[in-house]
Amino acid sequence: MRIHDIGGEFALIDRLARQSPITHPDLLAGIGDDAAVIEGSSPDADCLLVTTDMLVESSHFRRDWATPEQIGIKAVACNVSDIAAMGGTPTFMFVSLALAADTEVAWVDALYRGMADACRRYGVVLAGGDTTHAQAVTISITMLGRVAPPNLRLRSHATPAEYLCVTGPLGGSAAGLAMLSAGLEPPPYLKDRHLAPGCRLDVSAGIAPLARAMIDISDGLAAEVNHICDRSGTGADIVVADIPIHPSVREAARLTGNHPLDFALSGGEDFELLFSISPGNRQRLDDQGIQVTTVGAVTDAASGRMLTFPDGRQTPLSGGYNHFSEKGKDPE
Amino acid sequence: MRIHDIGGEFALIDRLARQSPITHPDLLAGIGDDAAVIEGSSPDADCLLVTTDMLVESSHFRRDWATPEQIGIKAVACNVSDIAAMGGTPTFMFVSLALAADTEVAWVDALYRGMADACRRYGVVLAGGDTTHAQAVTISITMLGRVAPPNLRLRSHATPAEYLCVTGPLGGSAAGLAMLSAGLEPPPYLKDRHLAPGCRLDVSAGIAPLARAMIDISDGLAAEVNHICDRSGTGADIVVADIPIHPSVREAARLTGNHPLDFALSGGEDFELLFSISPGNRQRLDDQGIQVTTVGAVTDAASGRMLTFPDGRQTPLSGGYNHFSEKGKDPE
Repeated sequence: MRIHDIGGEFALIDRLARQSPITHPDLLAGIGDDAAVIEGSSPDADCLLVTTDMLVESSHFRRDWATPEQIGIKAVACNVSDIAAMGGTPTFMFVSLALAADTEVAWVDALYRGMADACRRYGVVLAGGDTTHAQAVTISITMLGRVAPPNLRLRSHATPAEYLCVTGPLGGSAAGLAMLSAGLEPPPYLKDRHLAPGCRLDVSAGIAPLARAMIDISDGLAAEVNHICDRSGTGADIVVADIPIHPSVREAARLTGNHPLDFALSGGEDFELLFSISPGNRQRLDDQGIQVTTVGAVTDAASGRMLTFPDGRQTPLSGGYNHFSEKGKDPE
Repeated sequence: MRIHDIGGEFALIDRLARQSPITHPDLLAGIGDDAAVIEGSSPDADCLLVTTDMLVESSHFRRDWATPEQIGIKAVACNVSDIAAMGGTPTFMFVSLALAADTEVAWVDALYRGMADACRRYGVVLAGGDTTHAQAVTISITMLGRVAPPNLRLRSHATPAEYLCVTGPLGGSAAGLAMLSAGLEPPPYLKDRHLAPGCRLDVSAGIAPLARAMIDISDGLAAEVNHICDRSGTGADIVVADIPIHPSVREAARLTGNHPLDFALSGGEDFELLFSISPGNRQRLDDQGIQVTTVGAVTDAASGRMLTFPDGRQTPLSGGYNHFSEKGKDPE
């Protein structure tokens, strides 16, 4: 039996997590959140956050599409995004890098320049790592962060009747990728969203004290809503008309024969935040000038995870939209 | 200019460290020690230790030589060894794993079983990670640890007239590798040393309070002595006759046409500890029943880093023994 037979990467992680359940009094959260949470030395001390991501050439980036600076920026941003999703502040970063011996030193210098620029932007210190040989460039980053216990946000904290909000437009990275894959030159907005994305550390510290569950959008809105529902034991209702989609994403969908909703729901790598929040605290975010978009609400588990179209029709959030859009109809 | 043109991996790390000097008030040590050291929340709180290692198929392990359990054991041990070298105790581990989609699930299960066994042995909690696709199996581990500030051992702490000691016999891993490479079946001792090594967490906590500089032997004794000398600004004199070498290593050298001293000095992956210690504290180790072997002494920088043969001849520690042994003479 091979990995693709059991359903790929997520199924493998589930299987491994079941085999070695992780329990330790200091470990407040492990596999299943954006970062592991390790309790501080006293109850009111900051918790330590740890997240790790591995980027492999061809799977995660292409050297003919992305400059080394862009690859470095994205590698840092996707890890900072995990720390931001926990309500935390990133602190120290460790980079393990596998390179072929004939890699151009200038390429590696530029990769590190991109990482160093992103580290400065997010206030992260590159504190160590490892360098080794491989055929495919492989970048493994471990990011540490800290969070005061009241601001710690887990995927498991959603409660019915809370709003579900996102911090920005979705589908941009996937739209940029679709254009590149089709041999088209994406407009700068989509190129940036795919090749050198930022993350929402700029608003996460303001959102965290008011939100309940939080997660970053790295696998598409549908997957992230399902992650929150899985961990919180809730349902969700996502309102199609309220999902923020940039005009360039709609245009890219048209040019590549896709549906913009597919980019937003299952595209991934947007690195925006999805969170649940009480109606009262949602108002407080507005009052503080933190701009977010309400895309739906948390419901009880029995209601399922649904996608509601403008005409009132509903379809299950998991995969239904793919099937729907394949019929060539515009569900919006 | 390519990486091999500037001298490979170590030269690249030096170059990157020069380009982005790492300074942060909380970062007591970064690139250049076995682990990064991050100060605790108060001066007497434990420091956080962080080390990361990436193992790539073909470069670091071969699936036709090593069982997945062995690969898992070694991946954990080499990271625990880094924490032990700082005088610390390992706590939490994070594993990023890149696998081909057609990897056998049973192989991955066995890899994790090996890691879990090693984690239990060393008291480490596997707390998270990432799984992704690649052609070559790639295992990137980040290990956290903690150390009380008085027990923190850095490479830079050696002082002339201290002894240089090692915790066990050297060259076993390299000898095992040489036999496997020559198509010979290594004896169990060498096979274990190369394919499923342990590390010296069993004695590191006893040694750390008494030692000065400490490092783990992952790149051969010569390289590690040079690392200590580089960081401490000292010289060193290593006495060839005192280097502990297992009889199986001598036999493997004979069978493969190598010199046992080469295995010990430049073989690598022994995961024993090398440390400097005052003569008085050296005696205390004996009194405590901690068995170590004195292999030389720290000298002043002007004396250089030397290897002393039984007949009194000296040769520079860096590379000289390779040249020497190539002549086919037995320098012992």
